Amino acid sequence: MNIRLSERMRKADFQTLFTAEILKAAADSNIISFAGGLPNPLSFPVKDIEMAAQAVLQRDGAKALQYSSAQGFPELREHISKRYKSKLNLDISADEIIITNGSQQALDIFSAVLLDPNDEIIVENPSYLAALQTFHLYKPIVLTVELMEDGMDTDALEALLETHNPKFVYVIPNFQNPTGLTYSIEKRKKVASLLKGRDIFVLEDNPYSELRFTGSQFPSLGTYLGEQCCLLGTFSKVVAPGMRIGWIACKNKELFQKLLDYKTTMDLHTNIFCQLVISEYLDQCDFDAHIEKTKELYKNKALKMMECLDKYLPDSVTYTKPEGGMFIWAKLPDDVKGVDVQELAMTKGVAVCAGDPFFEYERGVPALRINYSNSSDEAIEKGIKILGETIRELL
Amino acid sequence: MNIRLSERMRKADFQTLFTAEILKAAADSNIISFAGGLPNPLSFPVKDIEMAAQAVLQRDGAKALQYSSAQGFPELREHISKRYKSKLNLDISADEIIITNGSQQALDIFSAVLLDPNDEIIVENPSYLAALQTFHLYKPIVLTVELMEDGMDTDALEALLETHNPKFVYVIPNFQNPTGLTYSIEKRKKVASLLKGRDIFVLEDNPYSELRFTGSQFPSLGTYLGEQCCLLGTFSKVVAPGMRIGWIACKNKELFQKLLDYKTTMDLHTNIFCQLVISEYLDQCDFDAHIEKTKELYKNKALKMMECLDKYLPDSVTYTKPEGGMFIWAKLPDDVKGVDVQELAMTKGVAVCAGDPFFEYERGVPALRINYSNSSDEAIEKGIKILGETIRELL
Repeated sequence: MNIRLSERMRKADFQTLFTAEILKAAADSNIISFAGGLPNPLSFPVKDIEMAAQAVLQRDGAKALQYSSAQGFPELREHISKRYKSKLNLDISADEIIITNGSQQALDIFSAVLLDPNDEIIVENPSYLAALQTFHLYKPIVLTVELMEDGMDTDALEALLETHNPKFVYVIPNFQNPTGLTYSIEKRKKVASLLKGRDIFVLEDNPYSELRFTGSQFPSLGTYLGEQCCLLGTFSKVVAPGMRIGWIACKNKELFQKLLDYKTTMDLHTNIFCQLVISEYLDQCDFDAHIEKTKELYKNKALKMMECLDKYLPDSVTYTKPEGGMFIWAKLPDDVKGVDVQELAMTKGVAVCAGDPFFEYERGVPALRINYSNSSDEAIEKGIKILGETIRELL
Repeated sequence: MNIRLSERMRKADFQTLFTAEILKAAADSNIISFAGGLPNPLSFPVKDIEMAAQAVLQRDGAKALQYSSAQGFPELREHISKRYKSKLNLDISADEIIITNGSQQALDIFSAVLLDPNDEIIVENPSYLAALQTFHLYKPIVLTVELMEDGMDTDALEALLETHNPKFVYVIPNFQNPTGLTYSIEKRKKVASLLKGRDIFVLEDNPYSELRFTGSQFPSLGTYLGEQCCLLGTFSKVVAPGMRIGWIACKNKELFQKLLDYKTTMDLHTNIFCQLVISEYLDQCDFDAHIEKTKELYKNKALKMMECLDKYLPDSVTYTKPEGGMFIWAKLPDDVKGVDVQELAMTKGVAVCAGDPFFEYERGVPALRINYSNSSDEAIEKGIKILGETIRELL
């Protein structure tokens, strides 16, 4: 039978081999993997979730299992609203939040609602692999702005905006995936001032800001941009990713209604049982204490990782020193390709992620993304030693 | 700010007012609602789900909450595979199944993978409202074939196929939504023989076949069409809809890979916790006995509803007599519009669903969809009496 695929699927480059290799490595207990982006399972509040699931079913019974509203459980949205206020001093009401199947689905909904083929968007260079893949489904023209140590190159952004009119700008200002970098407050203000008042949305993806283990929180771009800024959030990194509970916050009423219409049409609603369980967990448990424990865990992992990188990697390799999140970005000497390191390291039982898939256009990039959240200290010591040897072989 | 929506959203007719009215009615305890398509919460195995959730977290711990594979939990897919064999004598392996966020998401994935704007598809007339809405996102040309008492009008299908080459044909052969009708075995064979060997997929949506309370099971179109037929399934009607666990079964390897790529890109994977809970439930509990109880409940509801329709509705109203599922389709006299009945009945505290949104083109249709699964016997008696009075007023 001749399969007549849609154009989006004929042309899509899903890098499935790449992703499949990462997942396979993560699942193989003989491989030390720094390639994925998995939270450490030690950080999951398993006992509390068990308590919450039981409480929900005993109290709500069949209601916890029935069809529900597309927007999501009101009390969970209320929790998120309050946390925006207490942690980021942002006024986002529960009515301005839609619960999604992880924030990944929110990326898809947002793209579907705004993008026609050949519409322009702006992304950081590099940017989050899975966001780029989702955007590609809608065939936009992807404009890139270099990510510097303190955030987007605002001179380049300003120049781009003189000749282009993108539908949105996608940013990850805190502990970015893949680089681990965070925007300075000056860069936040500058990005906001360049975009303010234009018909351009800013999509601020913020999965990691609760995981800051050094330094202090910076304001969201939403502080400066109001309804021009939509925010993505998730419980994946602070409670548990397997429940797939994320959200999009949107203060613009016209866009909000379209996002909700699209979500309803896609899958009716996100699973209500897990929404109730997480809401119950937030009601009954000390979420802040839980996050403190997770931050302590990740801080120690990051310190261990940086110690080993200093010890085992050639001096010609530099790397970002994250203040939170889950990733370190290692810059290799210009003539060493990340993909070559990835390939050779894998033969030695260590999985790392080459920089390439995080770039829209560049290939053969001399960079690696290194995840530190999900490995034991012993695995970090052993794996980074092997990584250092691997890089030396390629020098 | 000027919102620049995508063309799909500018042109989409989401009938959100219609859907919102149904949901509002269903949530309002002062309204008797036959408008929705909700399973009866009495049928949800709350205690067993509680046991399963506890068992999963105690046994699997953090694994039940970590990121997982896009295709879905292997043991759950194994359960589904075995059930295809035992209930429908279909050979579908676990490897040919992708778990989705309800079967609604599978409709979206299937459409995205196959449809470009102006591609043709064939649907039953009338067909499932939410499927039509999903298809519309991809702007196909929707060709309709009348649904008769025993299934699709195969003469009309044959004629259409002479001049058209649709990407797929969407069918609900068992207790169709909205009509409650079921294809005869002859019609199944005829539809299959007309399509066999063409480059046209059949998408068989089958949420209700386990809920047959009279008569015997007919074969799936997959029996005759093999890899040309993709199957949608769901636990929403037989376990619990709020967990959003559905699936698509696809034997064609090329299409399967694209469906999986798209699912991965959309939302990484369906929530693994609920997949594990349902799988544990199927392992530990007597699922067949549970379904028997649900069928008994729905049979009695259907009998009660038919008794009341006979008693209270004018003789000029005819209706389908379902052998399973959740819906009855009432045909009104030609000059009585379903939308007028819906509107007037709502003022009297009874919600029913006009036929219109289930039709691609016709409006002012003299028909109603009546749901019987989710009302008490008293509500059926009282509500149908009011519905009878309402129709008489409009005669």
